[in-house]
Amino acid sequence: MKNKNEIKILKNRSIIKFEGKDFLGEVGIDGRIFKALTYARISVGVISQQAVENGISVLVNESDSEKAVNCLIEEFENERKSGKVSQIFSINNVSVLGFVAPDFNKIMSELARNNIFPLILNQVLAENRINLVVTSSQDEKSKNIIEAEIFSKPKTVHLAIIGHGRVGSTLIDQVLQKSEDIRNRKKIDLKIVAVANSRKIAFNKDGFNANWADEVSVAEEKSSVESLIHFSQLHQLENLIVVDNTTSKDFVKNYTRLADNGFDLVSSNKIFNTAPISEYRDLRNVLTKKNKKYLYETNVGAGLPLIDTIKLLHLSGENITRIKGVFSGSLSYIFNNFSVREEKFSTIVKEAIEKGFTSHDPREDLSGNDVAKKLLILARELDLTNELTDINIQSLIPEKLGKLNKNEFLNSLDLLDSYFEEIKKNQKENHVLRFIGELHGDLQQEKGELDVQLISVPANSEIGQLKGSDSIFKIYTENYGENPLVIRGAGAGAKVAARGVFGDILRLSENK
Amino acid sequence: MKNKNEIKILKNRSIIKFEGKDFLGEVGIDGRIFKALTYARISVGVISQQAVENGISVLVNESDSEKAVNCLIEEFENERKSGKVSQIFSINNVSVLGFVAPDFNKIMSELARNNIFPLILNQVLAENRINLVVTSSQDEKSKNIIEAEIFSKPKTVHLAIIGHGRVGSTLIDQVLQKSEDIRNRKKIDLKIVAVANSRKIAFNKDGFNANWADEVSVAEEKSSVESLIHFSQLHQLENLIVVDNTTSKDFVKNYTRLADNGFDLVSSNKIFNTAPISEYRDLRNVLTKKNKKYLYETNVGAGLPLIDTIKLLHLSGENITRIKGVFSGSLSYIFNNFSVREEKFSTIVKEAIEKGFTSHDPREDLSGNDVAKKLLILARELDLTNELTDINIQSLIPEKLGKLNKNEFLNSLDLLDSYFEEIKKNQKENHVLRFIGELHGDLQQEKGELDVQLISVPANSEIGQLKGSDSIFKIYTENYGENPLVIRGAGAGAKVAARGVFGDILRLSENK
Repeated sequence: MKNKNEIKILKNRSIIKFEGKDFLGEVGIDGRIFKALTYARISVGVISQQAVENGISVLVNESDSEKAVNCLIEEFENERKSGKVSQIFSINNVSVLGFVAPDFNKIMSELARNNIFPLILNQVLAENRINLVVTSSQDEKSKNIIEAEIFSKPKTVHLAIIGHGRVGSTLIDQVLQKSEDIRNRKKIDLKIVAVANSRKIAFNKDGFNANWADEVSVAEEKSSVESLIHFSQLHQLENLIVVDNTTSKDFVKNYTRLADNGFDLVSSNKIFNTAPISEYRDLRNVLTKKNKKYLYETNVGAGLPLIDTIKLLHLSGENITRIKGVFSGSLSYIFNNFSVREEKFSTIVKEAIEKGFTSHDPREDLSGNDVAKKLLILARELDLTNELTDINIQSLIPEKLGKLNKNEFLNSLDLLDSYFEEIKKNQKENHVLRFIGELHGDLQQEKGELDVQLISVPANSEIGQLKGSDSIFKIYTENYGENPLVIRGAGAGAKVAARGVFGDILRLSENK
Repeated sequence: MKNKNEIKILKNRSIIKFEGKDFLGEVGIDGRIFKALTYARISVGVISQQAVENGISVLVNESDSEKAVNCLIEEFENERKSGKVSQIFSINNVSVLGFVAPDFNKIMSELARNNIFPLILNQVLAENRINLVVTSSQDEKSKNIIEAEIFSKPKTVHLAIIGHGRVGSTLIDQVLQKSEDIRNRKKIDLKIVAVANSRKIAFNKDGFNANWADEVSVAEEKSSVESLIHFSQLHQLENLIVVDNTTSKDFVKNYTRLADNGFDLVSSNKIFNTAPISEYRDLRNVLTKKNKKYLYETNVGAGLPLIDTIKLLHLSGENITRIKGVFSGSLSYIFNNFSVREEKFSTIVKEAIEKGFTSHDPREDLSGNDVAKKLLILARELDLTNELTDINIQSLIPEKLGKLNKNEFLNSLDLLDSYFEEIKKNQKENHVLRFIGELHGDLQQEKGELDVQLISVPANSEIGQLKGSDSIFKIYTENYGENPLVIRGAGAGAKVAARGVFGDILRLSENK
């Protein structure tokens, strides 16, 4: 007894296409086709004819395709002369998949989401039997997608992790740890199939496991977007997400190409979103066009539900009038501690670096650039067109130290001590130092006012009471005028950032 | 010159289906069909034959369908006797849509999302021409969906608003005010096509405008889910969302039926999510099966990004160990004020009622039931299986007042005054009263510990510093152990709740 539910693939087929006019209703055309091909000892698969326009498709073995075209060119010579038949040609390298599926359209959705375009589609209605013709390069991917649907198998989501530093490696471990649970509970199978750094890329089409780092270290292939795209196509991988955990200016140039090739994007990397506004918008246009998504919740607030919240407030008309807060977990740690401990500023900064709270290059934090980027990203969620250059940034790095390289700078931190000691002493009583970002002005205009600065606040104020490495965001709107919406929590550290990236991966996976 | 982009509909067609075996490759069957029908003066539209199994579909005018079946039964009498042809039958009431579309699969997705099942599908590959056969009752809906895709028209989302009290009417006004902006910016056309209360339902297939309340008051149709479903099918409305802003125990019984009939669900109504756990899970199974969604961010925290945050933390493995907070905006207002003003408790309660901060029936708040429901809903987001009866609730309503009806109770509020005055006086110095909900215990087990109670806290503690009618939620996890994730903001009032519901509508619309 045949298993009704099996998915059959017939490979190495070609489609012979007729196009012409006025075939409609003409008795015997199909018959002539069959007859001519059969006499030429060519076996014929499917025939389909359009209702409103005219054309017929015939399926043959690929090895017969040239012969079939010639055979039919000869058979319909008169019609070609008279113009009734305009074209006879073959499309090679196709496969036919046949299966039984009650929910045909869910399958079509899933194929569509993966850029798969059946060339021919036929159904036997009463029995839910379907046949699809797809290009061979997509046949296994199609089969996997269809199987997942028919047999309610978990949907496989293929992850390419770019950057396996602190955030990236923590993320990989988190995903590996939770993958079985997510498979059981959400029928989503998260597979990490590529891990890359700036030099090399390692692939594993079955998914990396706990010894991924070893596999990466012995990998030899040079890191490139082309090799990643090629790999995804070669193995016909569906449901692709690329995750950028680098701080690379170069890698972000690949986002558009990746979206074009079927990848959704997730990044903790802030660089793309702070590019000039025209580039920012261009990518979003490509994403819309290709029905792809780019999520970046961790760009600001490392996993706090900030970007999604602001997006929805803005879109639903809750006019945001001001956003103010401590945007940087590392500077939060530094000033929370410096303000209340009798230690030198450089001691506290070194602590923050050791605890992993600062950027890879702490000057990114101390210059105020990290806060400025985060502020800019929030401003752009409100459709403001500010650029980085618009932001008033108070850098904590004196000019004289600005020209040193990273190591020289780290060795000269104590040169900051007297400066900050002075600022700390000159505060009013019971005040503390906080480094804040603020978006204000008339946010209904094209641009807002963006300020990044060190301020002194009462110790018992909300921002003054900040602890640990918490970030805090106060969102003022028309309806949250006096008492803003406040989101506060850990804003730094690889674990928190990785968990936030994981959240974005799950958001995308659930919607796939 | 024919407009290539027009969508043509041919109505009143029937499909004649052959099913049998071993037709494959048999020369002349199609020809015989054409010939037989043509001799019977029946014009034939489309023919399609399966590659892997056997069957042929022929399109004829509906008026010819009986004749066509009989004609073919006669023509293939021998094959029927031998079993080669197993069935010849007609499917009536179909329409054919023909159009040119470069992105065929996006169209198929959109049709699928709206439960539209093409019976036949044909493509002329090189020219992107497509023909679909659908049941007539779906032809206009299909045309609208296809047009939106091809001509990049805004996608129309049809809203049915159930309950137009404080939250519902505010929501309607918010949607009407923002609809043009959303159409321009997001290419989503939000149309309110039905507004219902417990007695009547008003329809407007073109979408209500600012005088919706007048239309509702003169509506005569009795409110029923059947009439809503019928309306949506009659006018073939795509992208349906039903929004429940009632507090009705009865309406929630319709959720499953609505999901079954193509509606996504949004509710501020908490009742469904606090039903017994088996009902809670049954709906979610139906939603998964029908590819529908149910969003209810405003069930807890009236628009604060709470449920989505907890969902993602939980799913990404950030084990939540405790949730504690002030869950009720109305009780927040009451105790924030009572604790610091020299007024009677009943005076403050009456203020809260007047300002619209309490539930429709303030006993719902004062009994602790509202907080208990919110706490239960959060517990269930963590896959805990608690029921309402598990919760330790400290009611603020003395037993003797419990038996009064609503008006009697409101007139007897002053009977509470001495009780609360006593509690207030007996606090330690610089302490304030707060009504909190807390989820704790071992949250890796089946059930958690859920407590709802009045507590006394230092005035300078975080919960002690709460202002206005703010809610606050502190989420403790493995990684946010010492410093929890905190979300705080306005937790009561129609504007805030309506905006939160609007946010859920937008989440659904963007994913449609």
